[in-house]
Amino acid sequence: MSNSSSSSSKAPLRVLIWNEFRQERDARYQTVYPQGIHAALHGALTSPDLLIGVSTLDDPEQGLSEQRLAETDVLVWWGHIAHEEIADDVVDRVQRRVLEGMGLVALHSAHEAKIFARLLGTSGALLWRTNEPRAETLWLVNPAHPIGAGVGPSFVLEEEEAFGEWFDIPEPDELVFVSWFSSGEVFRSGCCFQRGRGRIFYFRPGHETFRSYYDANVLRVIGNAIRWARPALEAAAGAAEDQRWRP
Amino acid sequence: MSNSSSSSSKAPLRVLIWNEFRQERDARYQTVYPQGIHAALHGALTSPDLLIGVSTLDDPEQGLSEQRLAETDVLVWWGHIAHEEIADDVVDRVQRRVLEGMGLVALHSAHEAKIFARLLGTSGALLWRTNEPRAETLWLVNPAHPIGAGVGPSFVLEEEEAFGEWFDIPEPDELVFVSWFSSGEVFRSGCCFQRGRGRIFYFRPGHETFRSYYDANVLRVIGNAIRWARPALEAAAGAAEDQRWRP
Amino acid sequence: MSNSSSSSSKAPLRVLIWNEFRQERDARYQTVYPQGIHAALHGALTSPDLLIGVSTLDDPEQGLSEQRLAETDVLVWWGHIAHEEIADDVVDRVQRRVLEGMGLVALHSAHEAKIFARLLGTSGALLWRTNEPRAETLWLVNPAHPIGAGVGPSFVLEEEEAFGEWFDIPEPDELVFVSWFSSGEVFRSGCCFQRGRGRIFYFRPGHETFRSYYDANVLRVIGNAIRWARPALEAAAGAAEDQRWRP
Amino acid sequence: MSNSSSSSSKAPLRVLIWNEFRQERDARYQTVYPQGIHAALHGALTSPDLLIGVSTLDDPEQGLSEQRLAETDVLVWWGHIAHEEIADDVVDRVQRRVLEGMGLVALHSAHEAKIFARLLGTSGALLWRTNEPRAETLWLVNPAHPIGAGVGPSFVLEEEEAFGEWFDIPEPDELVFVSWFSSGEVFRSGCCFQRGRGRIFYFRPGHETFRSYYDANVLRVIGNAIRWARPALEAAAGAAEDQRWRP
Repeated sequence: MSNSSSSSSKAPLRVLIWNEFRQERDARYQTVYPQGIHAALHGALTSPDLLIGVSTLDDPEQGLSEQRLAETDVLVWWGHIAHEEIADDVVDRVQRRVLEGMGLVALHSAHEAKIFARLLGTSGALLWRTNEPRAETLWLVNPAHPIGAGVGPSFVLEEEEAFGEWFDIPEPDELVFVSWFSSGEVFRSGCCFQRGRGRIFYFRPGHETFRSYYDANVLRVIGNAIRWARPALEAAAGAAEDQRWRP
Repeated sequence: MSNSSSSSSKAPLRVLIWNEFRQERDARYQTVYPQGIHAALHGALTSPDLLIGVSTLDDPEQGLSEQRLAETDVLVWWGHIAHEEIADDVVDRVQRRVLEGMGLVALHSAHEAKIFARLLGTSGALLWRTNEPRAETLWLVNPAHPIGAGVGPSFVLEEEEAFGEWFDIPEPDELVFVSWFSSGEVFRSGCCFQRGRGRIFYFRPGHETFRSYYDANVLRVIGNAIRWARPALEAAAGAAEDQRWRP
Repeated sequence: MSNSSSSSSKAPLRVLIWNEFRQERDARYQTVYPQGIHAALHGALTSPDLLIGVSTLDDPEQGLSEQRLAETDVLVWWGHIAHEEIADDVVDRVQRRVLEGMGLVALHSAHEAKIFARLLGTSGALLWRTNEPRAETLWLVNPAHPIGAGVGPSFVLEEEEAFGEWFDIPEPDELVFVSWFSSGEVFRSGCCFQRGRGRIFYFRPGHETFRSYYDANVLRVIGNAIRWARPALEAAAGAAEDQRWRP
Repeated sequence: MSNSSSSSSKAPLRVLIWNEFRQERDARYQTVYPQGIHAALHGALTSPDLLIGVSTLDDPEQGLSEQRLAETDVLVWWGHIAHEEIADDVVDRVQRRVLEGMGLVALHSAHEAKIFARLLGTSGALLWRTNEPRAETLWLVNPAHPIGAGVGPSFVLEEEEAFGEWFDIPEPDELVFVSWFSSGEVFRSGCCFQRGRGRIFYFRPGHETFRSYYDANVLRVIGNAIRWARPALEAAAGAAEDQRWRP
């Protein structure tokens, strides 16, 4: 099925939720997602306009085969302790698909994922002081942005891990959310980028020991971001164009 | 009818095509739009998802009453020789509606319209050398942008008026088209801005003596821009919020 | 003396600190600036590379005559309760000078000044809840920006007035600081814009009842901003160019 | 010597001109730079405020050792037929230095260099039709930008290779030049980016068979870009900060 049909207003958007899925299987991490973060997101994001699949790091081809990516309009990414295990050729093909038009929604610790650095060119480093629970308030700084629809002017997560600035990313094309933490930090927590024909959204919340992926506002934002990141109608055609490279 | 309903996927988008409509009524200008530019655009943009009206400078309240604007989701603007006649309170209310979320598609000589300067803060000045006919090629510099859907990688207008840089505008939030002219100029001819909750698109082609508003690609871009500029679902609600100003 | 000489590395930069200067003369406001905010800034910013003057709203021509502006490279602006008293033709000429290349450093309540709205096109509205003292931490979100030199990664003001998002400004060209407030708000508190040939910096701190303009970090930022906003060497020449407007 | 001293107004800026230097040594390519492009640039850019060195691909460690990079404030890069030969660990260390604050001026075919893709995240692909000589006019689209000082409003190169859009780069932080080609293309030919603490400028002219690096305007722009890309005074200190990464 072509991107253009899947991007029409009728065909559902093909979403792949990829999860590292290591900590949830290990009791020592005390995650609050017994079936995995991917399963929690899959259940919560179900909607007639989305055709959602899941895959994980320990699946064949790390869950990101050429075929799988070719059938994906928007990829949602959660990873944390195993970033280094992602094979470079997997990173290569995810990047290639984003440049062709596939959307990418990068969650929380994905700020250190290889694919994030590959697409943005920076380290993704940030200020981190503790993973003790902190209150986080996400403030919407662009009330007309579609990713913020339905959650403004702000919403609160009672317990989250705090991230602080400086966050080493390029100046975002659009800044949607800024977070306030009870421990004194601020963070650019909702950031839009475009690379090639693909749209990228980084969204901060989601430490594995806190319940953010059960929060209605967080889920609303992720759902909005998936729809915002859908490939342009032209992307499939465009990628096939005779775009001649310089010899 | 609220903005939110008109912005849903079902209710048509309420479009107002506003035209100065002076030169078309005066044979000396030799325009190629005997019924007016607004009429040409109205006819060509007709579509089930758009509810299009027209108004002109010589209508009551200059065609832009509070009521009319309140019922408009996206305003298309063409003006040229009578910019100075627009009353300041009309400019005030158009600006207010854009800040609330109404889209604005500013065409060609609108680069010198009061409302353009009001929203952008700059002079809108540009390099102008002649209105002799020139060939113009519009190159799409962002192939995934919805405003460029269906017209890339470039399209040609055999006869147009040339505009040149420097164009005194703020750096656009997104640059969509750059024009090449046979007389040696380039121009940022498709520029996106956001002000308040409203989206603004400036699109260069459309001198009154040339046939650009009969060109399929130009019309496709204007149609795309109207849909891109539709108010956010949240705009109506947002504007009604108790946003407290500093006393 | 031309801008180009004043912008060279030898001639001092001509700075004008303009202050509304009303509240400081009225005991009811309990400001902490007995000689005026302009005097506090003048004293603190003194430096061999700056030639600093001051003027106030109650001076002839509201302290902003054509001549005065022509001799100014960077204008620093503080105003609060008398924004509406600024004459429109004064706003016109300040805008014209910014478009020609004069820098503008807009402080605190200047978010509601006419000149700020004129140059940015938005309302400048923000979320305001109280002027009770709050702790503010300013986080540097671009550590290589010259305006942040010497004050990162963050600094604290023990008592300030809190401002909150949404702040109705265009997406800044560059975002330098984000503020955290003890009362739960965040704010984009250091924002760069360019309009025409002129650079604009908005800097949030400076409520009249708090001591921010005695704070070394605040003063360092304002000093950095003044130097960053200096006119381009080309600005004077450029403004004199035969930039032909479209007839 | 620390970056901070080299960035002061007194110590010269340490510039390294790196050149692939293959085509100039091979008569079949008919380059017009018998001593190499690096030598032409070195000679022309000589100035008391610059301490310029050169290195090439066939030097030890590909001319880009850790030590060499540690002593470089701004790196100028020209490469074309041997992009693939650059070792990945060399790309790693150049990227690391840019993120720390070293400036990068990427010339012409560098749009396909590994380091360019590494920092920008995109393919750098563009539309290419021929290397037959074309006339190129570079138009300055930001007359106050320091990189354009002294060359506006436009300048002409009688013979160059034409590049066309779409150019697959992220939307530049600042766009300085747009090129017009006699063969009908336009190109964003002067583009600013920031990654980490480092500034990057891409500048289009410079095909090996044409004389652009003898052109006074081209040289002026490259000289301006070198000075614009100098490390922030804070970069050295900043990079040494205890910026704690998330574990």
